[in-house]
Amino acid sequence: MKQYLSINDIDSLPNWVDEAISLKKNPCQFQQLGKGKTICLLFFNNSLRTRLSTQKAAMNLGLQIMVMNFGNEGWALEFEDGTIMDQGTSEHIKEAAQVVSQYCDIVAIRAFAKLEDKVKDEAEEVLNGFAKHASIPVVNMESSTAHPLQALADAITLGEHKTESKPKVVLSWAPHPKALPHAVANSFVQLMKRQEVEFIITHPKGYELNPEITENCQIEYNQEKALENADFVYVKNWCSYSDYGKVLTQDSSWMMTVKKLGKAKFMHCLPVRRNVVVEDAILDGNQSLVIEQANNRTYSAQIVLKKILETL
Amino acid sequence: MKQYLSINDIDSLPNWVDEAISLKKNPCQFQQLGKGKTICLLFFNNSLRTRLSTQKAAMNLGLQIMVMNFGNEGWALEFEDGTIMDQGTSEHIKEAAQVVSQYCDIVAIRAFAKLEDKVKDEAEEVLNGFAKHASIPVVNMESSTAHPLQALADAITLGEHKTESKPKVVLSWAPHPKALPHAVANSFVQLMKRQEVEFIITHPKGYELNPEITENCQIEYNQEKALENADFVYVKNWCSYSDYGKVLTQDSSWMMTVKKLGKAKFMHCLPVRRNVVVEDAILDGNQSLVIEQANNRTYSAQIVLKKILETL
Amino acid sequence: MKQYLSINDIDSLPNWVDEAISLKKNPCQFQQLGKGKTICLLFFNNSLRTRLSTQKAAMNLGLQIMVMNFGNEGWALEFEDGTIMDQGTSEHIKEAAQVVSQYCDIVAIRAFAKLEDKVKDEAEEVLNGFAKHASIPVVNMESSTAHPLQALADAITLGEHKTESKPKVVLSWAPHPKALPHAVANSFVQLMKRQEVEFIITHPKGYELNPEITENCQIEYNQEKALENADFVYVKNWCSYSDYGKVLTQDSSWMMTVKKLGKAKFMHCLPVRRNVVVEDAILDGNQSLVIEQANNRTYSAQIVLKKILETL
Repeated sequence: MKQYLSINDIDSLPNWVDEAISLKKNPCQFQQLGKGKTICLLFFNNSLRTRLSTQKAAMNLGLQIMVMNFGNEGWALEFEDGTIMDQGTSEHIKEAAQVVSQYCDIVAIRAFAKLEDKVKDEAEEVLNGFAKHASIPVVNMESSTAHPLQALADAITLGEHKTESKPKVVLSWAPHPKALPHAVANSFVQLMKRQEVEFIITHPKGYELNPEITENCQIEYNQEKALENADFVYVKNWCSYSDYGKVLTQDSSWMMTVKKLGKAKFMHCLPVRRNVVVEDAILDGNQSLVIEQANNRTYSAQIVLKKILETL
Repeated sequence: MKQYLSINDIDSLPNWVDEAISLKKNPCQFQQLGKGKTICLLFFNNSLRTRLSTQKAAMNLGLQIMVMNFGNEGWALEFEDGTIMDQGTSEHIKEAAQVVSQYCDIVAIRAFAKLEDKVKDEAEEVLNGFAKHASIPVVNMESSTAHPLQALADAITLGEHKTESKPKVVLSWAPHPKALPHAVANSFVQLMKRQEVEFIITHPKGYELNPEITENCQIEYNQEKALENADFVYVKNWCSYSDYGKVLTQDSSWMMTVKKLGKAKFMHCLPVRRNVVVEDAILDGNQSLVIEQANNRTYSAQIVLKKILETL
Repeated sequence: MKQYLSINDIDSLPNWVDEAISLKKNPCQFQQLGKGKTICLLFFNNSLRTRLSTQKAAMNLGLQIMVMNFGNEGWALEFEDGTIMDQGTSEHIKEAAQVVSQYCDIVAIRAFAKLEDKVKDEAEEVLNGFAKHASIPVVNMESSTAHPLQALADAITLGEHKTESKPKVVLSWAPHPKALPHAVANSFVQLMKRQEVEFIITHPKGYELNPEITENCQIEYNQEKALENADFVYVKNWCSYSDYGKVLTQDSSWMMTVKKLGKAKFMHCLPVRRNVVVEDAILDGNQSLVIEQANNRTYSAQIVLKKILETL
């Protein structure tokens, strides 16, 4: 595999999930694969789970690791072609990507949406800039529009916990004081479209995700109705896509509660604001899968890195 | 051993000191112990000695290491139970601690006192939050009220340099332009209470440490008198405990000088402000043990990590 | 070898270049050399190439690595002797250097010129402070006045690409919106003085480099004339040395163009501002050696570390 930019780079989702679950039982069995090879993790934004789990996955595969907070430690990057670079940017993505390619075998990149300019965010200039100009495989550690390592971890978690052949999964928007990106929701929706599930998205009007991504998905504005008989409820905030980057409402009636959850398993990518997105009782109860999702981030990253290493 | 939060977690101080001195002769003899295991160092505050020596100790034990500056690189943590997290904090300690526990086998934490609110500082919300919610051993790399890796390094240094069976040790307050925490002084006092020493604390009035910690300790407000015939003088600034967080005086007559030191050995945890806390001539002379104390930070951390690894 | 502070620490430049070119074919052949040894990289300034390539070089040699951004993660350093440290600095270079020496076998340091005070910059207080007080070898990862790892990488690149026994090399100043240090230019000039080359420096009046460094070098103020029949053109901005730290002109007619370059190979240390320092067509064309220079940073660092390790 030459890149992992979105879940479209997964050739067979059921196989990957099976392989991850098997890998989890003996995480260091492929230590020889990464021997003498190096991964560089470039963070343009903060990270806890991704930072640690991707390192852990790389260690499990015997890779050497370089971690860099590009924003603070490197140079301000230019992305436009043909610019006269006499302003704030010091280095062009063309050089940066080629240079990084000299020092490692795989580069993983985190660069969030800025939520100021939809066109710019959707251009994914950091991720796609690296993908275009690097001569080594590029892994997406959450970009403006996608978080495919999270989605794969979610698939693994669903694989481990589903008891029905076609479970009902609900993606339920939650209130949040800040404008958050669509990346996690987008990748989860794309994942659901490739799974044997009954899938419903529920959110207040105005919070419709990118319609290209939700094409053919069932959207239900009545949260209570959407949640009926759910097996898994994935809760996540995102800001408005049509009124790009705006917080249209913080209506607390959309917070997930024990009562609303019913018998379903609760999922969230973390970090999560307690008693805003979801009430304490769910996170502290035994229907929550959030810690297992976080744990599966290691195996999600490890499968991706393994697939890449096998083709190096 | 399941944690190292304070020197109370040392079961036998003389044994640990002996073991550390022996380890120092062949630091890599237990490389197999850490094989395939990972430690995560989480810094909520700056660090030079602790950052490097704890990494070095982990390397000597064959551990894999992940270092994270939590403040800049992660998410703002919430510590209160039941909070509606609609303000500045993005992630609850409950999730953070459980999540970190998924990716490593030991977590070490540095989180200083803020010196604004005694009750809050003494609650040790970061350290105790991790200790409570993590499922892996937690090591204190300096918390609000304790610096037990430093105290253990001090014990090793004393063990290497004492020539009397019951040496006289003086903890002498020194002036400083900024308000500094009590952590180092607290742990040193607790250490002295477990050693065969004649121990005196000297400081200006108003600089009494937490009386629970100094219970049964001799306090002498006359520095000159306290220092008489001392074998070891440990110099350290701290701010007022009763008038919490305040600098009551910067009286330079409390600075340690060659004349005052006499024949005693000089100790300090570093960093040290020259000619404010102690005069140049001491640090540049041969009675100073500060570099050896810094060196022993490696072996102090290594003994702690070894004890933990042996129980994993 | 006990240090690598400037290219004067290279005993035989042709041998080192040959050895690097040979090393490049099998970069991990000396993995045993670094076994059980540790290098600490201390950054007082930002870095991309140096950060990653020096880590890569250390990995290739089997070294353990600790990376620290001293400015953000450590304590503000004092460099003056005898200071009463009651102001902004918390730790003296004497202690810092000795302490770091306890935890590793080699220390590498990046500390740029501040361009405010020529005397202070030329005193190289950070680099020389460590060199003076550390008990371990010190490597310069770009200091106020020198960038000898870059110069050595440039020598390797020239060695790989020269087709004449005595090629013509031109160092050509370029415009830039910010005041940049002289370090790269200085080290390149010193390198050229030790090579079998015809060497010319060209820049606008007022941009003369330190005359001690350019002693016996040909300086030509007419860029076009200087570039005639050049085999290699090294382009770099620097600020005024006589009017220290000032940008005297941003005259865009000094930008390197395809037309001016002729048949010469183009060199630059990166990062480079496109269409200010050099036009796109050069960087995107096949006469540019900049990515190879960046690649050779690994082997430049690796030769230096190898030479040091051989004497430990």
